[in-house]
Amino acid sequence: MDKQRIQADMMRLAEIGRSPLGGISRVFGSDFMKQEQQEALRYLEEAGFETFMDPAGNVHGIYRPADACGPEILTGSHLDTVAQGGIFDGLMGFVASVEAVRLLREEGVRLKNPIHVVGTNGEEGNALGGTFGSRAMMGMLNLEDPEYLSLCEKFGYTKQDLEQAKMPVDNIRCYLEMHIEQGKTLYEQKEKIGIVNGIVGLQRYRVNIRGESNHAGTTMMEYRRDALVAAAKLLVRADQLAREMGGGMVATVGKVDAEPGAVAVIPGRAEFILECRNLEETQMERFTADMQKYANTLESVEIKFEPMVKKKPVRCEASLVEELEKICSQMEIPHRIMSSGATHDGNAFAMKLPIGMIFVPSRRGISHNPAEWTEWEDVYTGIEVLACMLKQLGQP
Amino acid sequence: MDKQRIQADMMRLAEIGRSPLGGISRVFGSDFMKQEQQEALRYLEEAGFETFMDPAGNVHGIYRPADACGPEILTGSHLDTVAQGGIFDGLMGFVASVEAVRLLREEGVRLKNPIHVVGTNGEEGNALGGTFGSRAMMGMLNLEDPEYLSLCEKFGYTKQDLEQAKMPVDNIRCYLEMHIEQGKTLYEQKEKIGIVNGIVGLQRYRVNIRGESNHAGTTMMEYRRDALVAAAKLLVRADQLAREMGGGMVATVGKVDAEPGAVAVIPGRAEFILECRNLEETQMERFTADMQKYANTLESVEIKFEPMVKKKPVRCEASLVEELEKICSQMEIPHRIMSSGATHDGNAFAMKLPIGMIFVPSRRGISHNPAEWTEWEDVYTGIEVLACMLKQLGQP
Repeated sequence: MDKQRIQADMMRLAEIGRSPLGGISRVFGSDFMKQEQQEALRYLEEAGFETFMDPAGNVHGIYRPADACGPEILTGSHLDTVAQGGIFDGLMGFVASVEAVRLLREEGVRLKNPIHVVGTNGEEGNALGGTFGSRAMMGMLNLEDPEYLSLCEKFGYTKQDLEQAKMPVDNIRCYLEMHIEQGKTLYEQKEKIGIVNGIVGLQRYRVNIRGESNHAGTTMMEYRRDALVAAAKLLVRADQLAREMGGGMVATVGKVDAEPGAVAVIPGRAEFILECRNLEETQMERFTADMQKYANTLESVEIKFEPMVKKKPVRCEASLVEELEKICSQMEIPHRIMSSGATHDGNAFAMKLPIGMIFVPSRRGISHNPAEWTEWEDVYTGIEVLACMLKQLGQP
Repeated sequence: MDKQRIQADMMRLAEIGRSPLGGISRVFGSDFMKQEQQEALRYLEEAGFETFMDPAGNVHGIYRPADACGPEILTGSHLDTVAQGGIFDGLMGFVASVEAVRLLREEGVRLKNPIHVVGTNGEEGNALGGTFGSRAMMGMLNLEDPEYLSLCEKFGYTKQDLEQAKMPVDNIRCYLEMHIEQGKTLYEQKEKIGIVNGIVGLQRYRVNIRGESNHAGTTMMEYRRDALVAAAKLLVRADQLAREMGGGMVATVGKVDAEPGAVAVIPGRAEFILECRNLEETQMERFTADMQKYANTLESVEIKFEPMVKKKPVRCEASLVEELEKICSQMEIPHRIMSSGATHDGNAFAMKLPIGMIFVPSRRGISHNPAEWTEWEDVYTGIEVLACMLKQLGQP
């Protein structure tokens, strides 16, 4: 493995979109993203792939061994970033896929299956919805919605484009992706590989609390119906409950709105969005039910839970998890099986394909931030594991 | 007591500033307030008072019995309202003072001391500061501050005006005010008179919490430094602590700001203003110290308490409290001794004079609201108690 060359190739692709503020802003639809797509195609060509860009802006590179037969193995990650993001989120998985193939070829490994590398478009949240490119490939965009189509057209994608971007899946064995963890579990536990068993689902509820607004000086504690104090109790309980439940359950409230919101006025209304994420839908249902039960004990206020989002968890294929675990054990790499708390292109690909995912550590768990960092040695370890996995699957 | 006439006079004065939205908006500096001052002067004249308006916009009426001697007794309340306020807050105390004097005269009571009724200007929060008129009378405005003076001039008050509004206090026995409670203690306890033993002080701290912002999906509970959850714990504790301490301690947070404030992002920063009010300064100090001690137990975040406001409590004169209690007991009126949670003109007058205050019930504790209401019978009871008190003090 020519580590210096890999690092140089990665950095050339990574620096596109560097902003004066320090971060990488290679956002969906930007000129930087167009430049990245061209650069990625060149990089694939140099690495000996057949290349093309599909009409949804996904970059493809196919490595077809001499006497290839059998289904393709799809692997890659996204090329776009959030605004003011880091260099590893997405791009690193794409580079790892290319380099894993290159490594196998350098080592003279003869694969039987073609390897299909993809650098997707618009995975991060954007006006056409996150995982745009992978959803286009899986035919999951709602092309019957004229409003959505006209929005697509604003970004230069016609209905015909998006129909053509759809990829037949019959001849694909699975989708494999390497990605930074974006959490700090591997970093804190000093483990080098996370084998993803699934991508958590999430549920969001709008919690609305109605108390009574009143004078902060003249209203004695016993006569208060303080909506913000009730909200605070719910936040504390949600935090506690998620910890008690364990099993990767997380619960978050990003902000609380209070009305009237003045210093010397007891808030009569409060509202927040309560989110929980888990790999088990039943656990999310239990979480919400327990929260509602607790809310009912707060008698001085009226509390309503209004469901907003219910996103189902996605499972990685068990045989892929098993295979990855075997590889890590044989290579004596400290690893763990874990769920992904973030959405990935895997969410879209899993609708039609078996998926497998590998995480590498993120320093201090930071991502979507210019300070995002993964040690290069950890990147190389990831490439090796991915290469082993491609070898395993590609030599059936 | 001609209850019908009193109600008609009160309503004539109260309706000035009625807005199409339903409330009374006789705010400081408004044309409605000017109209009110003129109407109040007329009302005083009709009631046989010598009248004048001082250069700070306070309306005065002096009842000087034939062979009066000894110090004046100052009594009254404010004529202005908040925006969209009710009819009783302030005005009722002014009318009660006038009617108490009228009642004594009707009853042929010969007073020795002059009674000086005042209808103050700008008691409610305004650009020149609440209790503007009474502070002008007590010479408490900062007339050496050119910035403040230029603000005063915008409202039509020159430095000379405000110097002239200052009242000599040597010849004043005390200030007495009747006001609606603005809380619900009397209403809930079915008591008719609150004898105020003091106006609570208040302390406000800006509480700033610094945690770490992070991804709501990928950051496991054990690695979180959630500033908003810490804020919620502080709010719950503040509510609990105020209840545990009792003795009229109240603690309020009007809103909590969280950053970055997005649904799927753990808040890295939170900030709120924590206010406590009590008649005992030591209790407020203890409250804050206990809160800071609790904050120190929240280890995953940094919490700072920055003092913003420390307003000292004001005591009503003990002999006036005693006298009022004697009167209520003799008249068999259900009453209680209580502190005032709201600021009043008494805060300013107490700087130079002994003060005494009487509360009458507010229905459901509502004030600063068009729905503010006090039963007329409760108003009449208040007038009777005030009249007895004037008789007591005016016939030494």
